[in-house]
Amino acid sequence: MWRTHNCGELRLDDKGKSVTISGWIQKIRDKGGLIWIDLRDRYGITQIILEEGETDPGLIDLARSLGREFVIQVQGEVVERVSKNPKNPTGDIEIKAESINILNRSKVPPFTIEDETDGGEELRMKYRYLDLRRGTVRKKLELRHKVMQKTREYLSSIEFMEVETPVLIKSTPEGARDFIVPSRMNPGEFYALPQSPQTFKQLLMVSGFDRYFQIVKCFRDEDLRADRQPEFTQIDCEMSFVSRDDVLSTFEGLTKFLFREVNKVDLEDFPVMSYQDVMAKYGTDKPDLRFGMPITDLSGIAKNHDFNVFNSAESILAICVERAADYTRKQIDQLTDWVKRPQVGARGLVYVKYNEDGSLKSSVDKFYDQEDLKKWFAQAEGKPGDLLLILAGDDKSTRFAAGELRLHMGNTLKLMNPDEFKPLWVVDFPLLEWDEETQRYYAMHHPFTSPKEEDLEQIEKNPGNVSANAYDLVINGVEIGGGSIRIHDRSIQEKMFKALGFTEEEAKEQFGFLLNAFEYGAPPHGGIAFGFDRLCSLMGGSTSIRDYIAFPKNNSGRDLMIDTPSEISPEQLEELSIKLISKTKES
Amino acid sequence: MWRTHNCGELRLDDKGKSVTISGWIQKIRDKGGLIWIDLRDRYGITQIILEEGETDPGLIDLARSLGREFVIQVQGEVVERVSKNPKNPTGDIEIKAESINILNRSKVPPFTIEDETDGGEELRMKYRYLDLRRGTVRKKLELRHKVMQKTREYLSSIEFMEVETPVLIKSTPEGARDFIVPSRMNPGEFYALPQSPQTFKQLLMVSGFDRYFQIVKCFRDEDLRADRQPEFTQIDCEMSFVSRDDVLSTFEGLTKFLFREVNKVDLEDFPVMSYQDVMAKYGTDKPDLRFGMPITDLSGIAKNHDFNVFNSAESILAICVERAADYTRKQIDQLTDWVKRPQVGARGLVYVKYNEDGSLKSSVDKFYDQEDLKKWFAQAEGKPGDLLLILAGDDKSTRFAAGELRLHMGNTLKLMNPDEFKPLWVVDFPLLEWDEETQRYYAMHHPFTSPKEEDLEQIEKNPGNVSANAYDLVINGVEIGGGSIRIHDRSIQEKMFKALGFTEEEAKEQFGFLLNAFEYGAPPHGGIAFGFDRLCSLMGGSTSIRDYIAFPKNNSGRDLMIDTPSEISPEQLEELSIKLISKTKES
Repeated sequence: MWRTHNCGELRLDDKGKSVTISGWIQKIRDKGGLIWIDLRDRYGITQIILEEGETDPGLIDLARSLGREFVIQVQGEVVERVSKNPKNPTGDIEIKAESINILNRSKVPPFTIEDETDGGEELRMKYRYLDLRRGTVRKKLELRHKVMQKTREYLSSIEFMEVETPVLIKSTPEGARDFIVPSRMNPGEFYALPQSPQTFKQLLMVSGFDRYFQIVKCFRDEDLRADRQPEFTQIDCEMSFVSRDDVLSTFEGLTKFLFREVNKVDLEDFPVMSYQDVMAKYGTDKPDLRFGMPITDLSGIAKNHDFNVFNSAESILAICVERAADYTRKQIDQLTDWVKRPQVGARGLVYVKYNEDGSLKSSVDKFYDQEDLKKWFAQAEGKPGDLLLILAGDDKSTRFAAGELRLHMGNTLKLMNPDEFKPLWVVDFPLLEWDEETQRYYAMHHPFTSPKEEDLEQIEKNPGNVSANAYDLVINGVEIGGGSIRIHDRSIQEKMFKALGFTEEEAKEQFGFLLNAFEYGAPPHGGIAFGFDRLCSLMGGSTSIRDYIAFPKNNSGRDLMIDTPSEISPEQLEELSIKLISKTKES
Repeated sequence: MWRTHNCGELRLDDKGKSVTISGWIQKIRDKGGLIWIDLRDRYGITQIILEEGETDPGLIDLARSLGREFVIQVQGEVVERVSKNPKNPTGDIEIKAESINILNRSKVPPFTIEDETDGGEELRMKYRYLDLRRGTVRKKLELRHKVMQKTREYLSSIEFMEVETPVLIKSTPEGARDFIVPSRMNPGEFYALPQSPQTFKQLLMVSGFDRYFQIVKCFRDEDLRADRQPEFTQIDCEMSFVSRDDVLSTFEGLTKFLFREVNKVDLEDFPVMSYQDVMAKYGTDKPDLRFGMPITDLSGIAKNHDFNVFNSAESILAICVERAADYTRKQIDQLTDWVKRPQVGARGLVYVKYNEDGSLKSSVDKFYDQEDLKKWFAQAEGKPGDLLLILAGDDKSTRFAAGELRLHMGNTLKLMNPDEFKPLWVVDFPLLEWDEETQRYYAMHHPFTSPKEEDLEQIEKNPGNVSANAYDLVINGVEIGGGSIRIHDRSIQEKMFKALGFTEEEAKEQFGFLLNAFEYGAPPHGGIAFGFDRLCSLMGGSTSIRDYIAFPKNNSGRDLMIDTPSEISPEQLEELSIKLISKTKES
């Protein structure tokens, strides 16, 4: 028996008991006559005490030989502490050691195992098993565990069935790049790892499973950004005989349940906005609603005043920053530099200050009089004391820049309360996006998304104008999930593939099984997928998903701890009927 | 709104309600004046009625145009049935159709969507989405869903944390063959798919996670047998500060909980037997304990009687078949043929009948008198009316054959009650197995299994004699799970790698991260993994795991529905820096 109790459970009620506990040494304090050891495990920290004169001298010598992160087993009596520690649940007691057994020694860890550590990210990733010992890191994975269990509890309670879909599937060139897996038994052929179980969950609806979910690993071979991982986890769901609002209310229910159970927060009903409206108002399809500062379109009233920048602009967009009329010249210059950064891409910034005395001061006073400027403030619902920041240019990039500027001002002015959660459903996305480079349309969600019924006729003549029956869940500016009502009719699916530039043969070759399935009684259906890593990081109050993954990969897709990807043996390659392309050998 | 109710919930209490239901047409009966439609969904079957004279004639025409597996939406009034069907929960009512909306048509399915279908396996796999519509198949996946949820509920309730370990890991040549994944971003390097999360779960113990679990996909590139799949699911667990009996009692608890919740069966406490004992008694390490018929060793009493077959045999092993003394010559001959099959491999079969009158008759009467034969029966605890079947030869293959013969007799005599569950812990496996072909030892479980403490010293001098602190859970002759107490000491782990023929460099190259981790305070730990597909099939009363997998692959690792593995484009290969080995081009 390695322990009678863990390191987090002993209380004053246990006084006098003879106990055995095991754990890691967090800290040793040696005050000459007294030695204290803080012993740690996942459940807490318990103090051990050894006292010269009382404790066996051999045991005191042993204790002095111990080091940080040694694993020891201690047997002793629970005694009441003289000076209690109210911050620690076990702080009323300590254990008077009677024997200590060293279960394993430890080298000095390469960084401190404390909530605030001195280890850099690369070092912590290499020794991830030590990083995971830190309470802050473990708590993130405990939150993840809880969100997983609560998700399953909720969905199971409303008749969703968890079904595992295959990991070794078929490569399809549409969408992101697949990871592929050579088949030894079928030389020259390959599996692919799923980017999502999309077609399988649709087939489960054709099978009449009615409500499906899965918390599932998905894979994308993309060039990684800070918040992307080659393997990531989704809460993947699909429902039959549902309209958009059925899906929205079901997953609004799930989201509220999770926040209530995990964050102890009651979310209000989620607003619903169209893609067009959020783009107009916030310049992004994932707006952070924890603050206002919407974009105002001044194009209708700010032209024709000899100011060529505005006259030649497709759009003139403003945000009104409350109580910022006292911004200095230097602050305005900094903002101007900020919007000109290539990531934002504006060509300049016009400002108008609405002074407290009612006068207005702008960088375009040459072209506009006080009445003109007042009209702008009226349009933006601004008032004395506010600052109007204006960008102009072509609509798409100006709107993007205005959205970025809004976020920047929200950040600067600390308008985003980290303890507040503001969800939003964004609906009615465009079905297709035109890609200039390849001169073709791409599906904005994926090729299985249903056009809105009223736009169905336009899919052949005017595909760019068709709206999708698609929706995203956005919380605090983070896209948490997305989904759509799907096509369940073979002929519409074929039209969709055609709009995407598939030949009939290509459509059949890649998705023939789905097209066939649609001919055997496919029900109307729709679904959604939540980015699970992102949801956890949002609920945990972090911006990095990597913190919420036990063994993440770095930006080159490398696991620094196990040092992979790595070379494999020539025999393995031979068995798989592949060989490496060596650029030098070929040239 | 596609439906107000599903097809399984309307009752007599709902009489008079106007409802809308949607589903698949299971059956249409047209009796001239009356048409009944059985409408099916996951939740049940509801009867629709249309009556000439009462129902709108257009609607009747429409109903006559419908076919099997069409998806329709029906609006109508719930009425009481004249002739009720007590076998169907909705059998007291039917719906008087007022409108029918065809949601999707269906071609005639390639096989009948009934519990007993006329479709062969290949056809059903190709149209798996239709096969899954059958109630018997869906129920298997419903059972799987329930076992998953209950497993998580139980393990979470006793502080196990579910942690997702990575799928893209490192290839290690030890054990079965890995599936590998070329890395585009690291040309010439590869990931591997995990055969199990073994090293990761051990690292989580080093991290102090204390109790880990995961229901996780694992991958093995093996030549497939009927009950093997290239991807399969495990309940994977690990615990710190535990001895073998802690692990056994924890997972005996889980198993009992699952059988109670899912099968409504209370399992008795699981017996524990050593590997040596089960091999001696049953000739296999996974005995079916639903019946007795143990193997009796007659080697000590049956030699030295001029019968050369026995005299030259290493082992003489018998099973005593109760009430089978009346077996005919023909039946004995059939058994002799059976044991001589190459899969069993015996060279012959000796029988002794203990007649009801107390006389004995055997195939070796020339060499043994009645007293000799009586002694054999005494040894085997047989009695008048029983039949002794005896095999002789070298110990290993004779023991195997006797075990097979025992199972065969159990089957023939229907001694294995399909509703009974007999679990057994098998413990103290050998640590290593000698392989004649490669002239080296292999780990019987895996290289991380701890030797039994008392055998530790022998690992260098006499590795073949070392017992492992390993255990298997066997139920009804099926290996449900296996695990071990792990090595947590770097030097012992290094000795183990050495015994397996690893050089120091190879050990470091492949498992350096684990060896390093052991130097930073690794706790004593152990764990287990249950084969989840097999557990579900056992609980569901089936012998095939394929039935319990939503989208299984066939024996060539092929998914017949989506037709994969398949070729990928030259561009994909190029991006991954690999090319195919084409035998013809090279020769």
